[in-house]
Amino acid sequence: MQFPANLFIVSSPSGAGKSSLIAALIKQYSAVHPMTVSVSHTTRAMRPGEVNGVHYHFVSNEEFEQMIKRDAFFEWARVFDHYYGTSRENIFKFLEKGTDVFLDIDWQGARQIRKLFPEARSVFILPPSLEELERRLRNRAQDSDEVIRGRMKKAVSEMVHYSEYDYVIVNDVFENSLEKLHSIVLAEQQKLSCQEIISSETLKKLLDESAA
Amino acid sequence: MQFPANLFIVSSPSGAGKSSLIAALIKQYSAVHPMTVSVSHTTRAMRPGEVNGVHYHFVSNEEFEQMIKRDAFFEWARVFDHYYGTSRENIFKFLEKGTDVFLDIDWQGARQIRKLFPEARSVFILPPSLEELERRLRNRAQDSDEVIRGRMKKAVSEMVHYSEYDYVIVNDVFENSLEKLHSIVLAEQQKLSCQEIISSETLKKLLDESAA
Repeated sequence: MQFPANLFIVSSPSGAGKSSLIAALIKQYSAVHPMTVSVSHTTRAMRPGEVNGVHYHFVSNEEFEQMIKRDAFFEWARVFDHYYGTSRENIFKFLEKGTDVFLDIDWQGARQIRKLFPEARSVFILPPSLEELERRLRNRAQDSDEVIRGRMKKAVSEMVHYSEYDYVIVNDVFENSLEKLHSIVLAEQQKLSCQEIISSETLKKLLDESAA
Repeated sequence: MQFPANLFIVSSPSGAGKSSLIAALIKQYSAVHPMTVSVSHTTRAMRPGEVNGVHYHFVSNEEFEQMIKRDAFFEWARVFDHYYGTSRENIFKFLEKGTDVFLDIDWQGARQIRKLFPEARSVFILPPSLEELERRLRNRAQDSDEVIRGRMKKAVSEMVHYSEYDYVIVNDVFENSLEKLHSIVLAEQQKLSCQEIISSETLKKLLDESAA
């Protein structure tokens, strides 16, 4: 399936800077180049501070089950009493109108999406070093040493999957990493398969006239 | 063969703006990101205004034949009494030290290079329309209508090969096209295969420690 926009899977261990990078990218560039983050659907109750359509799309059990029936999800799961899912419908709606979509998921989710939508491009964000990752995790929250150790261990077990991704960014200097992520987004739009849709009118005209 | 830099094949019909784009890219960005244009070797005499190492590497028959013997060329040809060739040795020397190389060749040359070096990435530059291409060709030189017609015909026969390339840029607004070309160069450097060389130390450290 080809669209005039791309789906980007972005993964990283917590603390590598993925969320800040995606947020900065969208803030700085989405006026010129339409981009958005995919928001999951859930049936669990909204918590204080959460906003419908921002943190999740909060829907009823009936709505969710209807979406399952019409095959609206890339993937969904029932965790305890609640449903969670990534809506293919929503993502395709954005891609169709030329909006790039970012999917902030881990390497397991990335594997699933790649299988279901091989056109997705994937980017892995790495910290410049384990020391720096630990420093960022410690600065972010006043967690105990044990919690930090647990997070570091989890981060490290995630990082070994970097080699399953199309692109790798070592997030050392934030502004440089932002430029790299932006360049990936722009470059993917210049790929032949994408240009054959985005510039189809121009190409048709150039080649029609050339046949004449 | 993997290098910490990339070889970019850039093709376009004459008048689409390829040479200006490559020149501007190198002028604006090569201080930060090392880039160069591949210069061919020839045995023909230097003409007035030509500079050795800029327009061609001017070498003797003996030197050229020695290069043939040691398999130094991607491709070479003898046209009338003179040799012309694209030095693989030179290109690899740049790639090894992390300098991206641009190869300004037509679709036939591009096909040859892709066969010999599949890691090469290729970009096709298209004009926004045939009217605009004709306008640019007329502005560039005071050629007769017949010469212009011939150039347009040739341009059109070249453009049908755009679909053999990895990337396509429709060169409408020069500054936008320059940004697109730059983004392709930056993005290719973030590709997994390239990062595994450029960031090998960082990756090794992150993963060695993670194994501990």
